Formats: sequence, structure tokens, C-alpha cells
Amino acid sequence: MASALKVNKDLVRERQKCTFDVKELTYIWEGGREFTEERQRYENIVYSVKELQDEVPELYLSHKERYESSIRKACILQRLQNEYGKKHKVLNTRTIRLVGYGAIRDISPFLLHNGMFIQTIEGQGTPEQQAEWMPKAQAMQIIGTYAQTELGHGTFLRGLETTATYDVKTEEFILNSPTLTSHKWWPGGLGTTVNHCIVAAQLYINGKKHGIHLFMVQIRDLETHMPLPGINVGEIGPKLGFQTANNGFLGFKNVRIPRKNMLMKNNQVLNDGTYVKGMNEKLTYGTMVLVRVSIVSDAANVIARAATIAVRYAAVRHQSQLKANEPEVQILDYLTQQHKLFIAIATSHAFSTTYGWLYKAYLQVVEDLGKGKQDHLPELHALSCCLKATCSRDSAAIVEQCRLACGGHGYMASSSLPIVYGLATASVTYEGEHTVLLLQTARYLMKAWQMALQGKVLAPSVSYLVDSLKSNKQSWQNTPEFIVKGFQHVAAGKIKDAFHAIQKHVKAGKDYEDAWNLASVQLIKASEAHSRAILCDVFWRGTIIKSSTASPGVAAVLDHLVQLYIVYWALETVGDLLLYSNITKEDIAVLKVKYEELLALIRPNAVGLVDAFDIRDEVLNSTLGSYDGRVYERLMEEAMKSPLNQEPVNQSFHKYLKPFMKRAKL
Amino acid sequence: MASALKVNKDLVRERQKCTFDVKELTYIWEGGREFTEERQRYENIVYSVKELQDEVPELYLSHKERYESSIRKACILQRLQNEYGKKHKVLNTRTIRLVGYGAIRDISPFLLHNGMFIQTIEGQGTPEQQAEWMPKAQAMQIIGTYAQTELGHGTFLRGLETTATYDVKTEEFILNSPTLTSHKWWPGGLGTTVNHCIVAAQLYINGKKHGIHLFMVQIRDLETHMPLPGINVGEIGPKLGFQTANNGFLGFKNVRIPRKNMLMKNNQVLNDGTYVKGMNEKLTYGTMVLVRVSIVSDAANVIARAATIAVRYAAVRHQSQLKANEPEVQILDYLTQQHKLFIAIATSHAFSTTYGWLYKAYLQVVEDLGKGKQDHLPELHALSCCLKATCSRDSAAIVEQCRLACGGHGYMASSSLPIVYGLATASVTYEGEHTVLLLQTARYLMKAWQMALQGKVLAPSVSYLVDSLKSNKQSWQNTPEFIVKGFQHVAAGKIKDAFHAIQKHVKAGKDYEDAWNLASVQLIKASEAHSRAILCDVFWRGTIIKSSTASPGVAAVLDHLVQLYIVYWALETVGDLLLYSNITKEDIAVLKVKYEELLALIRPNAVGLVDAFDIRDEVLNSTLGSYDGRVYERLMEEAMKSPLNQEPVNQSFHKYLKPFMKRAKL
Repeated sequence: MASALKVNKDLVRERQKCTFDVKELTYIWEGGREFTEERQRYENIVYSVKELQDEVPELYLSHKERYESSIRKACILQRLQNEYGKKHKVLNTRTIRLVGYGAIRDISPFLLHNGMFIQTIEGQGTPEQQAEWMPKAQAMQIIGTYAQTELGHGTFLRGLETTATYDVKTEEFILNSPTLTSHKWWPGGLGTTVNHCIVAAQLYINGKKHGIHLFMVQIRDLETHMPLPGINVGEIGPKLGFQTANNGFLGFKNVRIPRKNMLMKNNQVLNDGTYVKGMNEKLTYGTMVLVRVSIVSDAANVIARAATIAVRYAAVRHQSQLKANEPEVQILDYLTQQHKLFIAIATSHAFSTTYGWLYKAYLQVVEDLGKGKQDHLPELHALSCCLKATCSRDSAAIVEQCRLACGGHGYMASSSLPIVYGLATASVTYEGEHTVLLLQTARYLMKAWQMALQGKVLAPSVSYLVDSLKSNKQSWQNTPEFIVKGFQHVAAGKIKDAFHAIQKHVKAGKDYEDAWNLASVQLIKASEAHSRAILCDVFWRGTIIKSSTASPGVAAVLDHLVQLYIVYWALETVGDLLLYSNITKEDIAVLKVKYEELLALIRPNAVGLVDAFDIRDEVLNSTLGSYDGRVYERLMEEAMKSPLNQEPVNQSFHKYLKPFMKRAKL
Repeated sequence: MASALKVNKDLVRERQKCTFDVKELTYIWEGGREFTEERQRYENIVYSVKELQDEVPELYLSHKERYESSIRKACILQRLQNEYGKKHKVLNTRTIRLVGYGAIRDISPFLLHNGMFIQTIEGQGTPEQQAEWMPKAQAMQIIGTYAQTELGHGTFLRGLETTATYDVKTEEFILNSPTLTSHKWWPGGLGTTVNHCIVAAQLYINGKKHGIHLFMVQIRDLETHMPLPGINVGEIGPKLGFQTANNGFLGFKNVRIPRKNMLMKNNQVLNDGTYVKGMNEKLTYGTMVLVRVSIVSDAANVIARAATIAVRYAAVRHQSQLKANEPEVQILDYLTQQHKLFIAIATSHAFSTTYGWLYKAYLQVVEDLGKGKQDHLPELHALSCCLKATCSRDSAAIVEQCRLACGGHGYMASSSLPIVYGLATASVTYEGEHTVLLLQTARYLMKAWQMALQGKVLAPSVSYLVDSLKSNKQSWQNTPEFIVKGFQHVAAGKIKDAFHAIQKHVKAGKDYEDAWNLASVQLIKASEAHSRAILCDVFWRGTIIKSSTASPGVAAVLDHLVQLYIVYWALETVGDLLLYSNITKEDIAVLKVKYEELLALIRPNAVGLVDAFDIRDEVLNSTLGSYDGRVYERLMEEAMKSPLNQEPVNQSFHKYLKPFMKRAKL
């Protein structure tokens, strides 16, 4: 960290005001001291490598130059990671991703090699297939990606058009892209980086369709990198973000691969074309669920980044007077600014706590599946869908709120807030589109409601539905526990409404599917309300556990944050509470006062709270958010790196502007 | 337009279903047939110019190359515009901006020359100053911008640090930037384009500070474009959007300008240093108010662009089955998709109607001011603040909703949705930051409430406060007129709450300013509720007037849109209505049904409605949204333009990737 002498004086003062042990909170936030120290050790290594530091910031480069720079850095980083893994212990995913941002400043073109290619071989390959491909993939002698989505097909897997037709004579699969829309589209690294692909395709044997299966396909020569015969591959062009992810497209024309290249852990195709259906279809859910669970953690992390930048800037920035003849005040002293930023800090903790809870549930389900028990899979699937949807959406909204809270400077690329927004908003769509996922959870909720009506026992996360059927509601109390119950009443009420909306349409003569569609806006709202009830409940209960072993200072700020989160959402959804709980207008007035009191309680600890996220300047990469608060100096320093500022007069003056000015007539 | 033969068959079918005259609605939307025809004539000229068409899409270029390309195109476009203005009539601002997007694909580096530099000379210069500078500026023999915001100072004008000190001996002003934070920061075109600047600076005469005044300063040599002595100028670097706007910074070191370069229409400095205060301080409000009013129109236009893209794509895109064994359906048939998109169409009309109303009010106030009447200025100021704030914020949210409704492809730069979002979200901050503006309106509302309590006559836009004081509320009706009244009750209720919150803090011993800050979250909400009441009221009344002369088909769709807008916002703010109006739970259930009926009514006209915005493909510049619906073909064609796709193997393979793969060990 920068020496105390150079730190902005407002930040120094803020840090002096802090009432709790920042380090202790970092350990809690990160899941344990050992994770923090491991990350710090690795960061010290990575950020001392000179070759990873940019001479010209990426954003000044052309699209092609940015790609080349990202490959260069990704190779260095991968080598550091592998070396570290050999000497010390293997790094956790969060650390790898966090440090990756700091080094590459955007998405690595190897993201899907590490995140999907290796995992799919591991999850879907037979032991022989794993033995063949895993060592090469782990050593990056082969580099791969996972190719599922097509130009014309995303969410609806059964609609995929790529075909893999078994040729019994040669014992090969023949891959084809029969249409323009069947071209693979989006896989990271596919454009110009990877030489292997796991391809999702419709399996055909003797003219019979057997649905989607996965195939290992080499697409480029390992020596020359030339695309192999029949392969049409390239990159898909610029996007809102993910500029260096090297997303690509891929088409096949009679590409032959050996039979053993179908991933056959579950279903199999024998030499003679016999199709053997596997027993454990459900196992394939695993990776998908895990990816969605990890997006809840990603959401906590992007919010932490944005909050760190915005809170530090709000402490440094002075603007306007509260009172005439007094100096301009820190914008962090405006209640409206606290309203925008403190919910960001609280939400990051809410999502981090929820991730911990959900990941534990995931591990339990995986263990159960190993024992042949599938009972908790539907509940986990429903939870991972709605929590992925809600946390990703909230993270995008909150990051943008933090960005806007920095005024014009939040629009500067050098603030890093635009790139963080690009990451956050992408997660709303990838790995399960937002609306589609909420509707998947809604299907589970409709079944749960039916079961509740039938008096059956429900899974823990929906057991509140049983309580809601009891007519004697307790009178409202303005305590966090009770507000959480209020959210459960809201969720139950909306689930019931949606259920009745479907029934109404069915009674009016609609098919169930049409009735479902006609009720889908209400189904979405039910699913959202369920998510919020879960988030508040898990955050509340999780914080109590964390606080029980924390120092009084840390326990106090954790309590402020969880209360703020719950009261904030109560006030945001007052209409729902009025409709579905027995809250009164007087209670709402009390909660408004409570909310403002919590803002005031958090105010002195705001900078300490974002310091506790312990995000290094290299990861923040922000003129507004660095630890030392040299905001204005950095803004000017970054601007001075612009190639347009390396020469007093740009050539366009002589080429275009001057002739234009001269030709202009009065 | 493309020939009918090549148009996507779904779009053809959608257009056949349309029940109203698309052209007629275009004329209404654009304010009259003459405006539409004028725009079309100009567009036909501009888009036939080959030199304006890109060989390589802008997004593949480096930051510097993009700037150079934008200057080249801006010069061509400006010449076309000047020539057109001479032959035909002068184009309106909306047409100039719309066609500008189509040609430059982003912001012109001349934007502030046309939008602020010329207007400020006209509004703030004496007749002599106008005679000297206007002809040169209009012919672009001099190119300028408007420099007010500083690195450390935005909203709070009095905080600006740049100084202009009068030297009575030489009859000159000496400009200085005493600190880093006093550097001008943000002005469009300032970076490397303009040679003149209107600079806002603190005027000092004989050591006495006279506040902010405007000065015309030449900053670059007209022949060589070299910065003049004492001028430190450059560009500020990349941003979230506005990449080609060439925003710049500017510092002064003892830069001397003649006395006559202070804009002296109002305040004056005489030769001997005598400061003469002008009479018409209020006149300077004019430009600022006009800019805010025009942002309401901009908001309508960006929403129209995004809605056109998203609705056409939703008609072309098929995804998932509603029923097993049926083909995948157009995503426009999902109720959730209609919920996301139809409010966009309705909002664009709401804002367009509100702009027409507000612009008329502005013209009236300007006329009044000319006669020395200032009565309506505070009301107009309050309206322009909250409507700018609300419309810009809504436009950003709705554009992003449209983008997300396009799934992954909405993240592609080639969809143009990311760049449209960049434009929309910028407007939330520029020309008056969102929160600051809402609080300005809140000040007016607090005064109005006080006046209402005192039984005084209120301005028309707040006269509903008087009604709200009457205790006998009518029972709720589910009609648009009555819902609008409901919104007024909500606004009045929140204004009252905020008023009492301030009073409570004052009674508890706080200064008024501290009480104001403590109540500011509630003040914001009051201001927002006021905006929504105004928007719904104006849209409702404006639509009745428009419909009265429209054909039955067009009148019907206009009615659907305004009802949708009002019912949508009633459902979005149910909590407020429950708290402040006498709506019942049963009414809410009725409104939900009504809302779904309106979606169904609009569905067959959805494509016709966005066609009626009549935005040319050149302006949309979108793979997803073009008139002919060749979505997938265009996505692939655009991707193929990537420089990375011009060679089978990128050099980074040989330089980095291959050595890395070879060195990798098992």
C-alpha cells in the first residue's frame, strides 16, 4: 500500500474514524484468514512482474492490438499460476479471477479453457477420456473452449441445429452446420485462440435423433494453428464488454472425429452404432448448477469493486455547500449519496453470505448424488436459477448506481466503472437468461404451492408456504426477523396469485401452456419475491452466525449492514408488504426513520467497510478508487497517456479541418 | 427501404397484421408531415454520399484512428448541412442530430460548436460581439466549444476556480488555472479540434471577486493549430460512450485576452475596470432551460431507436416452444417480452408529447421575458429540472431493458444497443446531475406546499396540491383520468411527508440546511412522484388532442399506448397508491388484468408502431434492427469485417501461444 504520507487527507481522516478492525472483516468477507493470505501472497508475485504492466492503456489500442496484448499477458499469467500451484497450494477460483482482472484488465481469452473445457472433460468424460485429455489440457498443450450456443439458438437446448451423425463404417461422427443459424456463436477463446472445442450437437445414428451430446473436436493444427479442413472459425467482433474474451463463431462441413471423441461418461455409442442410454442423466446438471452458484459470488465481487471506487471517491470529492459560507462538503455527507452507496456495501455482504450458503448446499447435493440420492436436486436447481437471476440483475443495477454516483468522472473509462458495468450486465444474460431462469424457479414454486395445498411436506426453502396458509397472521413488528417473515408473506401471496392466474385462464378454456404464458409476468414477480425472501433470510441468519465469533466492533457493523439491507428492501417493496402482510402506514414511517438512522451509523465506517473488501489497486485499476485517493492527479496522468496527447497537432487538422475551414464561405 | 422480396417473412406477416396507417403516425410522432418530409429529403442526400460510408467499422479502429475518422466525416457532414441550409430551409435540431448519428455513428466532435458555442454567443454576446463572431462561427472559420466544468467542479458553479483578472493598464483579462482541479474538463471538441472556447471563469477586478462570467478565448493558432502560449490543452481519454466527441481539458497560465472578449450582454466591465451589473440576470437561464427541455426530446429518440431494434428482433427471433411438438415461437409472443418492450414504445410517445408541451411553455416564457414578465420562469425551471432528470433516467433504464431483451446478441456492439445505452446513460449526468436536479425541483415543491397551506394561488403544474388538501377524496375509479389523479395524490402526499420531515428535524434543533439534507431521500421521492404525475397528465391530455384529428386506426393505437403507460406506472407504484390514494386491493387486481389486455391489443401492431418511428437503417446501424430483418446474415457479415478475421492465423500464435504450449510441461 502507498505510504500514509501520500494518502489524501480526507481518506486519512475517514480511516481514523473507523470503529472496527478492518483486517478481521476482510477475513470474514473472504471466508477465512487463510484465503486472504493465500491471495495476498499470489498477488505480490503477479503484480511484481514488469511484463504484465501496460505501457499504453488497453483502451487506446485497436481491437486487434488489444487481443494480441491479452494473449501475451494471459500466457504470462497462466505460467505464474501453474508455477504457484506447484510450489504452494492450488489457488481458489475467486483468487484466480480477481488477480486475472488485475493483470489482464478484462477477460482472459483462456477463461473458458479453465472454466468450462477442463471441467466438462472432468464431469462428462469416461476415465479413459479423462486420462487422455486432462493432462494435456491442464498443461495447456491443448487449449480448448466449450461450444454450445448457436447464432440462432441460446436458451432452448433442444433447438440446437449442429449435427453429429455416426458413420458405422468408419466408426466416426460427422459434424455439420446445416444452416447459417446453426453456427456456434459466443464461446470465449474460440475466435482465434483455441485449438480444441467441446461441441454440443444433435446426435444422429441411422437416421434416428438422440438429442444433444458433447463431442471433443480439434479445430486448429497444433503446429501451424491453421483451421483444419471443414472448419469455418473466426471471432464475432466487438461487444459491450468482454473485449479480450475472443468470443468466436464456428461452422462444420463434414468434419470427421473418431467415435471415442464423444464424451461418454453417461450415454454411449458403441462401435456398431448401438446407443446406450446412461443412468445418471441428472449428473449433467452439476456443472450448470455450479456455474450459476458461482455467479452469486461474482455478483458480490463486482459490487465490492464498484462500491470501493465510489465510496473512496465520495470521500475525496467535495461539491457544493450544505451551508452558505462553509467550505464545499465531501459528497459522502449527502444523505442521497449514502442512500446510493451504503446499500451497495450491504448487498455485497448479502450476496457473499448467500453464496457461502448455496455452495454448501451444492456440495451436499453432489455428495448425495454420489450415494444415489437425488431428493434435494430440484430445490437446489430452483434456488440456483432465481438467485443467479436476482443477484446478477441486482449487481448490474448497483454497479451502475455506483457509477452514476461518481457523476461525470464515473463515465471516464479510467474510473474502471464502465468496464465493471460491462462485466456485471453480461452476467444477467449468460449461463441462463434472466427471465428464463426466473420462470424455471416459478415452475418449482407452482409445484410447491400445489403440494402445500395438499398438506405435503415441503423443502426447507419453500416451507414458508405452509405457514402462509395459516390464516392467523401475527401483528407486524419492525424487527429484522419479522420483516423477513413479511417478505415470505409477500412471496407466498405472489405465488398464490400467479397460481390462481393460471387456473383462471385454464378455466376459461386455455391450454396450460397458454395459461402459463398469460400468467408469466406474475410468475416472474413471484419468483423475484421468493429470491428476495431467501436473500434476506439467509443474510440475516448467516450474519448472526458470523457475528457470534466476531469482535464487538465487527459484529456491530455486520449488524448495521444486514439491517440496512432488510429495511432498504422493505421500503422498496412497500406496496407488496401492504398487499400481502399486515404492515401499517405507521410501521412504514418507523422504518423510514430506522433507515436514515442506519445510514448515519454506517457513515463513519464507510471507507473502512470498503477497505475491508481489500481489493488491490491493480484490480480496481481506477483513477477514482485507489487506496491513496489521488483522484485528480490520476485522472490527469491517465489522460496524458492518450496517443492524441503525444503530439501538439493531430494530422487530421491538416488533412481535413484546415481545408474545411478555408473553404467555408460567409 | 429494402425491396419487399428480401424482407424476413415474419416481419412481412407482422406488417400485414398492422391495423393503422403507419405514415400518419410518423407525422404525428414527428410533429407534422413537413418535418418528416424535410428530414427524409436531407437523409436521402446524406446517405448517398459514399465518403461517409465506413470501410472498416469504427469499433475496430484505435482510439486515435476513430478520432481522425470522425473529423473527416464531421467535415463532410457539416458541408452537406450548410449547403442544404442554403438551398432549402434550415433543418431542425432533431433532424441534424438524428442524421448526424447515421453519418458519424457516434457523437460529432463539432457537437458543442453547433449546440453551445454559437448559442452562447447569440444569447450572451452584445450586438457588436455577435456581429464579430457569429458569421465566422457559422461558417466554421473559427471552431469553438463551451468550457465550464472543471476537473474538481461540476454542479456547483460558484466553486469554479479558473480566474479572469482584469488588468486596467492593458485593458485585458488575464486567465489562470491556479490549481490542478481548476483545469477545464469535459468540453466536447476541446481535446484536439477547436481553436476557440467560451470559458466560464471567476472575474476579479482590483482584487474583488465578481463571480462567474464568460470569456471568448482563442486557444489554437488558426494556421498551424498549435496551442497558443500559456494554453495547456489535450483530450481526456476514453469513456463509456461519446468516444468521438473529443472531450478535452484546458489549463491557462497568464493568458491575456482583450476586454471586449468578455461576453457583455448582461454584466459589463468598462475600460477603467468599473463593473456594471446588468438588469436581466434571469435571461441567462434561457439556454440552460432549453438544453434540459431538449433532453426530454433526446430521451424519446433514444428509446425509439432501442425499441425499433428490440421489437423487430423479437419478431424475427424464434426461441423455445410454448407447446411441445410445435415450432419455436417468435419471442414477441411471450408475455414477458411484451412487458419489456411495449412500455418502451409507449414511453417514447409519452416523452415526445411532453417535450412538445414543455417546448411550448419555454417559448411562452421567452416571449414573456422579452416583455419583462418573469412570473412563469420558476415553474418552467422546476419542470425542466425534474423532467430532464426523470426522462433521462427512464430512457437509460428502458434502453437497457430493450438491450437485455435481445439476449446475448444485444451485447454485440453490432446491435448498436450498447452505443445507444452509452448515449442514454450519459444524459442522466450531463447538463445537471440527476439527484441535484430533482432536489432543485423539490425546493420549488416545498415552496408550493407552503403556499398551498397559506391558501395562495399556485402555478398550474402544482395546482393539484390545493385539491389534495381537501379531505373528501372521491372513491377510486380504474379510468386513466382517475389514475392520473391518483398519481397527483401520491405526489402531494410525498411532498407533504418531505415537508414534515424537514419540519421535524428543524423542531429537533437542526439548521434548515441540515434538516434539508436529512430529508433529502424523501425530497427526491417527492420530486420523482411529481414528475410522474406531470408525465401521465400531459401524455393523457396531449393524446386526446392528437387523437381528435387522427384516423380511427391511429387514434386507437394512441389510446392503447397512453393507457398502457398509465396502468404500467400504477402497477409499478402500487405501494404509493395504497399509501396515498384510496385504491383498493380489488382495483389493483382489475388493473393487472387491464394491463395484460392492453399488451394483447398492442401485440399485432408492435412492428407497425416501431416502423412509425421511421428511423432509417443508417441511423439504427444495427444488425438486429434493420427494416428487412436480415438479423443472422448481418451478424455474420459484420463479424467477417473484424481485422482478426482477415488472416487465418494471428501473429500472437507464433509470438506467444506456441512457445507457451511447447514450454508447458506435464
